[in-house]
Amino acid sequence: MAIGVALLGSTGSIGRSALDVLGRHPDRYRVVALAANRNSAALIRQIERLSPDLAVLVDDVGAERLPNRIGTTTVRTGREALLAAATHPAADVVINAVVGAAGLEATLAALGEGRKLALANKESLVAGGPLVMDALARSGGQLVPIDSEHSAILQCLEAVSPLEVERIILTASGGPFRNATLAEMADATLEQALRHPTWDMGAKITIDSASLANKALEVIEAHFLFGLDYDAIDVVVHPQSIIHSMVELIDGSVIAQMGFPSMELPILYALTHPARLADPGVRRFDPVRAGSLTFEAVDPLRFPAFRLGFEAGRIGGTAPAVFNGANEVAVAGFLEGRLPFGRLASVIEAALAQHRPTRVDTLDTVLEADREARAKAAEAMRKIAC
Amino acid sequence: MAIGVALLGSTGSIGRSALDVLGRHPDRYRVVALAANRNSAALIRQIERLSPDLAVLVDDVGAERLPNRIGTTTVRTGREALLAAATHPAADVVINAVVGAAGLEATLAALGEGRKLALANKESLVAGGPLVMDALARSGGQLVPIDSEHSAILQCLEAVSPLEVERIILTASGGPFRNATLAEMADATLEQALRHPTWDMGAKITIDSASLANKALEVIEAHFLFGLDYDAIDVVVHPQSIIHSMVELIDGSVIAQMGFPSMELPILYALTHPARLADPGVRRFDPVRAGSLTFEAVDPLRFPAFRLGFEAGRIGGTAPAVFNGANEVAVAGFLEGRLPFGRLASVIEAALAQHRPTRVDTLDTVLEADREARAKAAEAMRKIAC
Repeated sequence: MAIGVALLGSTGSIGRSALDVLGRHPDRYRVVALAANRNSAALIRQIERLSPDLAVLVDDVGAERLPNRIGTTTVRTGREALLAAATHPAADVVINAVVGAAGLEATLAALGEGRKLALANKESLVAGGPLVMDALARSGGQLVPIDSEHSAILQCLEAVSPLEVERIILTASGGPFRNATLAEMADATLEQALRHPTWDMGAKITIDSASLANKALEVIEAHFLFGLDYDAIDVVVHPQSIIHSMVELIDGSVIAQMGFPSMELPILYALTHPARLADPGVRRFDPVRAGSLTFEAVDPLRFPAFRLGFEAGRIGGTAPAVFNGANEVAVAGFLEGRLPFGRLASVIEAALAQHRPTRVDTLDTVLEADREARAKAAEAMRKIAC
Repeated sequence: MAIGVALLGSTGSIGRSALDVLGRHPDRYRVVALAANRNSAALIRQIERLSPDLAVLVDDVGAERLPNRIGTTTVRTGREALLAAATHPAADVVINAVVGAAGLEATLAALGEGRKLALANKESLVAGGPLVMDALARSGGQLVPIDSEHSAILQCLEAVSPLEVERIILTASGGPFRNATLAEMADATLEQALRHPTWDMGAKITIDSASLANKALEVIEAHFLFGLDYDAIDVVVHPQSIIHSMVELIDGSVIAQMGFPSMELPILYALTHPARLADPGVRRFDPVRAGSLTFEAVDPLRFPAFRLGFEAGRIGGTAPAVFNGANEVAVAGFLEGRLPFGRLASVIEAALAQHRPTRVDTLDTVLEADREARAKAAEAMRKIAC
């Protein structure tokens, strides 16, 4: 019998890659629920192709064009419907590829039902890490990351016992501004910031990769996912994105996971973990054709968003949620042309400076910190625009 | 209670590195037996420092200078005494770092007694693979490789199930003649051939690394050790010797083991496998200081010994023993100035061409093939010298 899959964020970059992977294994996986944010046209095409039991458009704005039913598929709209998709009774695996902090509730809902959660929404862990890990521990569900770096670490950790880990080393491509000066980045255009050298991804994460805010989010994600102190998490710039991350062990050995840079492998591995599935469709890494693999230190002066995120992680409590919420507002501002690239970090810093971190006990604590961060970030952005 | 270690080949390069590693963990390991080939002076110093129960000088020539007893240590000489060290009752682990096919009997003796064998003597597996694997299966012993490449593969395989392996990729430094022409290699001097770019090793293996015969020996070793078809074993030149080898999985993922090029880590891992031991004495790999990691295909035209060894492996039976025996004679000839570097492969080829491979059923079959190979190789060398 096929494994039922609920795919949240189906029309985004990860969602489309996931459907490519799932489509190569039709005997093994069946898509039982789809959820998209607002791209109703793309969602309708997916419904017609896949006939899931349930399809959801989260944003009500596009909803009027949608019927209540397409073929055998029930079509619903709104945030409650997203949670219904995340807890669909036929879904053995839930892929959460929602963008931003909006994914947290779906993560908690899926884990609360004891499902296997393949998590591309790193903001769930950044904003609500303690809640997510608590839900995981209580429900008997599984949490497998789709981020290529965390997938790499997870694959490496299969080789060792947790007590044998000295540190993990997340690799970062360095993004389009790896060699740029602060002055060059100050007024970087949207086109420049979206020109990622190695990964083809959605707009939000591509901007986060240009500012290295994404790598800070990944450090925090790794902290929760693998239960590691921040002192045991390092980041190294590796422009070729071939070594997806490394684990250094107590005897000095380093285990690394490598591959051609494509999200298809982390998606496939999240589905099959801890086993693996033969898939000739995943493009192979050819060392001879790979050229040189190089490594550089991260420059925290040129990438202040990285430094702020790492600090927010160390502070803990609601600080990472504030970092994330303010960053989302700042990136949206940049994407809409309302904020220069060089001021992204100023907006985040303003929100963090005004926040008094508290323990993360409830979802409300997180949502309130997120709201506050967004308000403070918006305020900071208005001041900058003046 | 400390783990008893018998160290065969204690005065060689691997032997000395092993003593460095063991010396950092005196509470955990105790050297109960030492065996050296002919360096009696070095052996006496080791006896005085370590007070093993038994010390052996294999070559009778140096034996007259040795007393029967030094302190609490019994001193013996000859091949029988080597086997006594390999099966010493207090030895939980036997490190076999004997050079050449001479190590096979010690390997079989240690495994026959159900010991854990840490194997640096790859010739044991090359010449007597079926016998070694049979002894391992029957005795309940353990076989852990000390070769850095095989240690890397073993470490990577801890992360996966055997059915998930698509191929292994052994890395090769390429040696001192990586960029040399055939003409340049033809009359290469001993000094040139011994100038290995990344590894500090004994003379025999350094010459094998220059001709890439060593990599062919490692391919055959991997075939037996990991039970892999030759089609599932690839070799790639990686001049920096940082990635010690890789495993490609059925889903396209590649797991690699990396580290600073030093034999101390493979020795330590062979001792502790499948666990690990914290050891700040193992030099750490720093990616930022590593420079570029590059990969090239092996050129079988410039490295005919590699091609011959791979072919001998595929032929199987006694062919690998003949390849190894002829290679040992050829390398000794080169080291003694009786054979040009460019004719190493001719000597091996002559021995292989005259050999009719048979199944490896008994130690005698292997020893006879080895003797024949050495005779044919010596004959071929005499013809070349004329």
